[in-house]
Amino acid sequence: MEMNVSKGTVVLAYSGGLDTSCILAWLIEQGYNVITYMANIGQEEDFEAAKKKALTIGASKVVIDDVRAQFVKDFIWPAVSAGLIYESRYLLGTSLARPCISQGLVHVAQQEKAQLISHGATGKGNDQIRFELSCYALWPQVKVLAPWRIESFTKRFQGRQDLIQYAESHGIPVPVTPKKPWSMDANLMHISYESGVLEDPAKPAPDGIFHLTADPQHAPEKPCKLQINFEHGMPLSLKNLTEGGPVETDPLQMLTTLNQIGGRHGVGRTDIVENRFIGLKSRGVYETPGGTILHVAHTDLETFCLDREVLRLKTFLRDKMADYVYNGFWFSPECEFVRESIALSQRYVTGWVQVELYKGSVRVLARNSPTTLYNQNLVSMDQHGDFQPNDATGFINTHAIRLREFQRFKTQLEEEAV
Amino acid sequence: MEMNVSKGTVVLAYSGGLDTSCILAWLIEQGYNVITYMANIGQEEDFEAAKKKALTIGASKVVIDDVRAQFVKDFIWPAVSAGLIYESRYLLGTSLARPCISQGLVHVAQQEKAQLISHGATGKGNDQIRFELSCYALWPQVKVLAPWRIESFTKRFQGRQDLIQYAESHGIPVPVTPKKPWSMDANLMHISYESGVLEDPAKPAPDGIFHLTADPQHAPEKPCKLQINFEHGMPLSLKNLTEGGPVETDPLQMLTTLNQIGGRHGVGRTDIVENRFIGLKSRGVYETPGGTILHVAHTDLETFCLDREVLRLKTFLRDKMADYVYNGFWFSPECEFVRESIALSQRYVTGWVQVELYKGSVRVLARNSPTTLYNQNLVSMDQHGDFQPNDATGFINTHAIRLREFQRFKTQLEEEAV
Amino acid sequence: MEMNVSKGTVVLAYSGGLDTSCILAWLIEQGYNVITYMANIGQEEDFEAAKKKALTIGASKVVIDDVRAQFVKDFIWPAVSAGLIYESRYLLGTSLARPCISQGLVHVAQQEKAQLISHGATGKGNDQIRFELSCYALWPQVKVLAPWRIESFTKRFQGRQDLIQYAESHGIPVPVTPKKPWSMDANLMHISYESGVLEDPAKPAPDGIFHLTADPQHAPEKPCKLQINFEHGMPLSLKNLTEGGPVETDPLQMLTTLNQIGGRHGVGRTDIVENRFIGLKSRGVYETPGGTILHVAHTDLETFCLDREVLRLKTFLRDKMADYVYNGFWFSPECEFVRESIALSQRYVTGWVQVELYKGSVRVLARNSPTTLYNQNLVSMDQHGDFQPNDATGFINTHAIRLREFQRFKTQLEEEAV
Amino acid sequence: MEMNVSKGTVVLAYSGGLDTSCILAWLIEQGYNVITYMANIGQEEDFEAAKKKALTIGASKVVIDDVRAQFVKDFIWPAVSAGLIYESRYLLGTSLARPCISQGLVHVAQQEKAQLISHGATGKGNDQIRFELSCYALWPQVKVLAPWRIESFTKRFQGRQDLIQYAESHGIPVPVTPKKPWSMDANLMHISYESGVLEDPAKPAPDGIFHLTADPQHAPEKPCKLQINFEHGMPLSLKNLTEGGPVETDPLQMLTTLNQIGGRHGVGRTDIVENRFIGLKSRGVYETPGGTILHVAHTDLETFCLDREVLRLKTFLRDKMADYVYNGFWFSPECEFVRESIALSQRYVTGWVQVELYKGSVRVLARNSPTTLYNQNLVSMDQHGDFQPNDATGFINTHAIRLREFQRFKTQLEEEAV
Repeated sequence: MEMNVSKGTVVLAYSGGLDTSCILAWLIEQGYNVITYMANIGQEEDFEAAKKKALTIGASKVVIDDVRAQFVKDFIWPAVSAGLIYESRYLLGTSLARPCISQGLVHVAQQEKAQLISHGATGKGNDQIRFELSCYALWPQVKVLAPWRIESFTKRFQGRQDLIQYAESHGIPVPVTPKKPWSMDANLMHISYESGVLEDPAKPAPDGIFHLTADPQHAPEKPCKLQINFEHGMPLSLKNLTEGGPVETDPLQMLTTLNQIGGRHGVGRTDIVENRFIGLKSRGVYETPGGTILHVAHTDLETFCLDREVLRLKTFLRDKMADYVYNGFWFSPECEFVRESIALSQRYVTGWVQVELYKGSVRVLARNSPTTLYNQNLVSMDQHGDFQPNDATGFINTHAIRLREFQRFKTQLEEEAV
Repeated sequence: MEMNVSKGTVVLAYSGGLDTSCILAWLIEQGYNVITYMANIGQEEDFEAAKKKALTIGASKVVIDDVRAQFVKDFIWPAVSAGLIYESRYLLGTSLARPCISQGLVHVAQQEKAQLISHGATGKGNDQIRFELSCYALWPQVKVLAPWRIESFTKRFQGRQDLIQYAESHGIPVPVTPKKPWSMDANLMHISYESGVLEDPAKPAPDGIFHLTADPQHAPEKPCKLQINFEHGMPLSLKNLTEGGPVETDPLQMLTTLNQIGGRHGVGRTDIVENRFIGLKSRGVYETPGGTILHVAHTDLETFCLDREVLRLKTFLRDKMADYVYNGFWFSPECEFVRESIALSQRYVTGWVQVELYKGSVRVLARNSPTTLYNQNLVSMDQHGDFQPNDATGFINTHAIRLREFQRFKTQLEEEAV
Repeated sequence: MEMNVSKGTVVLAYSGGLDTSCILAWLIEQGYNVITYMANIGQEEDFEAAKKKALTIGASKVVIDDVRAQFVKDFIWPAVSAGLIYESRYLLGTSLARPCISQGLVHVAQQEKAQLISHGATGKGNDQIRFELSCYALWPQVKVLAPWRIESFTKRFQGRQDLIQYAESHGIPVPVTPKKPWSMDANLMHISYESGVLEDPAKPAPDGIFHLTADPQHAPEKPCKLQINFEHGMPLSLKNLTEGGPVETDPLQMLTTLNQIGGRHGVGRTDIVENRFIGLKSRGVYETPGGTILHVAHTDLETFCLDREVLRLKTFLRDKMADYVYNGFWFSPECEFVRESIALSQRYVTGWVQVELYKGSVRVLARNSPTTLYNQNLVSMDQHGDFQPNDATGFINTHAIRLREFQRFKTQLEEEAV
Repeated sequence: MEMNVSKGTVVLAYSGGLDTSCILAWLIEQGYNVITYMANIGQEEDFEAAKKKALTIGASKVVIDDVRAQFVKDFIWPAVSAGLIYESRYLLGTSLARPCISQGLVHVAQQEKAQLISHGATGKGNDQIRFELSCYALWPQVKVLAPWRIESFTKRFQGRQDLIQYAESHGIPVPVTPKKPWSMDANLMHISYESGVLEDPAKPAPDGIFHLTADPQHAPEKPCKLQINFEHGMPLSLKNLTEGGPVETDPLQMLTTLNQIGGRHGVGRTDIVENRFIGLKSRGVYETPGGTILHVAHTDLETFCLDREVLRLKTFLRDKMADYVYNGFWFSPECEFVRESIALSQRYVTGWVQVELYKGSVRVLARNSPTTLYNQNLVSMDQHGDFQPNDATGFINTHAIRLREFQRFKTQLEEEAV
């Protein structure tokens, strides 16, 4: 078709689902040559079936890209090491996946000499921002087609029914099972659930929504002890102290195993209302088994190893970085700076942490490190050591100067007021 | 005795235990007139027995002061409302109790025209600082006697055996049960355990150390649902949705009930290494059943209600305030300022949160508020409402300017470098 | 014309200049009924001439609104009290004026039952954002017409020549003097200059660009001493110690006088490159005579009065607020919160500061306050007072614990590495 | 003397003045073997005369250490690059010198196998803390003797008269000129003045107090233009555009020249009340000619080059580092971390700044950089370039969501309240 030539080549982030299948057909209809790109980031998916589907619909090429190892090593591990957590509770599973996928999209687009990238993210969400900022940052010249923000598209597809009708009329297989009344998104780090029935924050999430984690009430009666080793803040190895088995050292394998064990014990479910970048609040339900265990363990080791004041600075940088990542700025000058600074802070975060998983909770039991500032001799109640107790007197008295002055001054003001 | 007259009157923070009993006798021996002060902050204690003991040893007066209601209302509730948590994990139970007790000590000292206050806190710990800074702030003219930092005292009492011997020779009853190999400190907010066998952070805390909370493995098989209402960030009422019973609205009763239910379900155990103010790291084991439930619920409601940017500011102030409180600066200009500012931020934090307790964990299920910025119509995937999807395009493109420029600039530098 | 009825009434922020006169004509041409709004914020302007001009062009009504007193009291004074300064150097003169004007625009629009507001701010600048965010915040239902972002307008007016031609053909008087090769914006707080020849940051600003301030080389040979009194952080009165004259206490008069004196002495010129909200850097040249004097004086008094830790917190909030105001968020939850918190911090910032103006500089000479924490007796080298020198020993030794431990630990690591 | 042997060897930070000469004699009297250490950090001093004096008094050895080059390169340059400024106004001249001198003290002490270091800093000041924390950090085993905090010393020397009398009776030459009614401290970065008549902050500093800088009223009538080049945030070279002369590139020479030129033009005087680490406020008068010029120039170039968000992070770290340095924590884990992080931020801070000195002020005229994010084409009013003006619409509308929601919500609350 000449039309394709005139409008150019688009690399479409393709999921195999109804939405992106319709987008694929629609883009072709608009005259684009479309290459579909599927990143394997650990979601459960029949990639071969999706490939076949895309080709049937008319994709000129289908790229399936296993970026799992890279996702763990370049995105999840740095996030663990930074201690990233958004608004005190969300471990950023989706936020981390987006720049990883975008890297693949840009790579394929540059290889295929496509000037356009497209995605199926909607207009009120965070993901459109994360995809596009990542793409623009990596390749300033790229153009992005976001059909859910293009008027001709949104007018045509005003509801799910329109998509189904369009699919049927374009030979796109329509899912036979009815859509669940919420949306979900899965990767190696987590599964997230939102929208639909979840939009009422006053109603608990429906039973049976979870995939990765057992209901804590059905989790094993026996706790499971794990030992996780870190080096310079990065996860290094995993040992199952309760059930034995091999020590995992490969990052991808380690996270997969943690997800399995954590999932079995019901670890990592959260239900929150969070602040989206565009200024809306939305309710999200997450299950992050492995990520939760790693976060708990890393936090423990870090506090154990780091100097207090360095910890304060790192915590400030952590909170800034969590916002950057959530908002889609993984590839940005500020995120680059913070990543490098945080890496400096992790120099001495080396050692192990033992945790216990039980019916939904993960608790730290013990930790050790060859590079901790913890000094048992110094802190022990039973030893004086170098410590001069009367030094504390001077410490307290000196800190009291400001407080006494403040009181003196307020009393004086009150007296004058009389 | 004339000696008493010459050295003056001391108000001693008295616990009834071996240490402060010996201090009491020693102070009398040094020629002080000693009034013992015991604050009831919710610890389990036979106050009458302690009173009798103090009088037997020679206290000129014994004051037993029930400050529980005040402790909850003026210290714990503001801490919950501020979301205070030290180094991401410690809910500050002891830190909050110290200024409350100090208030009582100063009050009694002023009433009794005593110029001296004494306590049994040791020289490496945080509590000496919290007591003394609080006392100095409230009453700049007061003098503090800290025997564990007075050379003649510490030389005489180099170990527990010296205390026992001294007690025996001074008619002070010695505990018949052997001392546990750790120390503990209890109040309405928590019990903390430290030192002794806990000084090795690589060894899990011994079984059976906990008093307030059931071992999660022995907790009820059936979860318990609670609803907690807040008003302007402060806990307002408690309803047990699973077991029924009266709605608690009295702060002290509410926290007591939360401790009972939370304790039964094994909620609120933590094992951490923390940074003491004097620059040492120490291991602490805590159980904070009610406080943990309130913290989880308040955090949820606050994020639900507050504007994102206000939440960021409040989180910054929260972390500063946690450090102030941990370090003993409850009564300080900076803590006063932060408390007032945080109170401003809580104007709209009103509503309820439902949580589920189960085998050691507390999970948020749902929340509601008449004053939330959450807008279901606006966020819903199914409604466009006022929202213009193509506004997001401009939003993204504008945010991309900086990122594209940075990339352009780095590429240019790289090209020049070639 | 029926057209007017159909398209509705617009309140246009009108300056009397070429741009907004063309916009006025163009809006009428598009079928709007246009009311022009001119805020008197202290700029030099022949308001009567501008009124006549607007009516001639076809404005259905002309509102001239003297908001000078309000601008000083509700915007400039709080900014002085907060110590606002953007990127360490810009005193935010324009940023403060925009929300003040927007308030007037919204007020008139509501009174006149207009649903539309329009302005002549361009598409790359900050002012469009400040106007619109302020209007939307004050009146969420309002619609804004920004012609410089409307394609039909920008296509028609691609350069200044197009505006002149349009003006001539629509009977709009065209300025006879050629436009200066930069743009300027004036109000009570400052005059700003940007664009044109200033766009090359490597070239000094041209001679003779400044209006409010004398060239320091031509400023008086004799310095001028002023005394400024503050109450709770707000400017209270001004006394000219060198030249005498009445003590100014009216805010508007006080600022006007400060501008005159400061201007005569060449105070308050700055040349910076700043970061615009949309992500571009731009060069701005400012003259802020009165504002600079007030900023210097307030900073001095505040540091003199405030407790150190409160000062740290306030400085953090100040920097956040400067960003909010620069970016157009004066009317926002976060700015409201910060304004209220900062007001709390200013409780004790009361007293006077003496400054000397001379040939472009303003230097603090002395200060006094009835509510300072400064304690001459305590700090004096000649008096011991309550101060125990050996307390400092304990203070230092205790602070040294962390540092010694860190060194011990690094030495140990190095030894192990061998 | 056997006494010397028994008490050990002390390295004394010696200034040649009355105080440290008496301390030297007193230490010898106490039985110490004393080595005097004088660091040449750029103060005006007759080192040979001081050496002779120390040997006459009885020093066993005199070390004169020219650390000027090191002081500039390792302390002042990093401070300039970090933009350090304490409480918005003090450029930390003394604070930077102390760790530099301490390094020399520790080096000599280790070489000479002395276990003791002594200094003449007083008990209410910052310098005792800076010296001792630096020494302890560099050499945890060292002991410090601070005579002004030793009771037997302070009892003997209660005022200046006691020192003079002691000096006379120990053959220590006493200054013939009467002591100025303030103290001063000089180095390459600045001269500071404090105490004595300066202790009344309501009285201007006396005429004629300054040494390094001309009174602006007597400074040259002709301004002087300088160009300063920076590389990665560090000063690289200095060119005098007005008077010509060689381009300075040696750091020490560059700072010396800047001090001369800046001093001649009366640049860098400040009069402040600052918060000391021990909790007192004190008045300090400073003259920092070269440092002020460098600070102004670096601030300009940095804002010109850095991404906005990186600048925000760096500013936060800058303020933390200024506190660390002021408080004596140059050698600390937190300062090490911040220095390394800030160095990362300076990667692109390369280019030149032109400034003009005139009668006490220093103003930026122009700047340029090969690595700036400033993009003249993008920002120009005359060019559209890549920039889509209607993107700003989406940007504004999206940012307005939060503000509109907040207003909607407040209106709703108000309506409900009626």
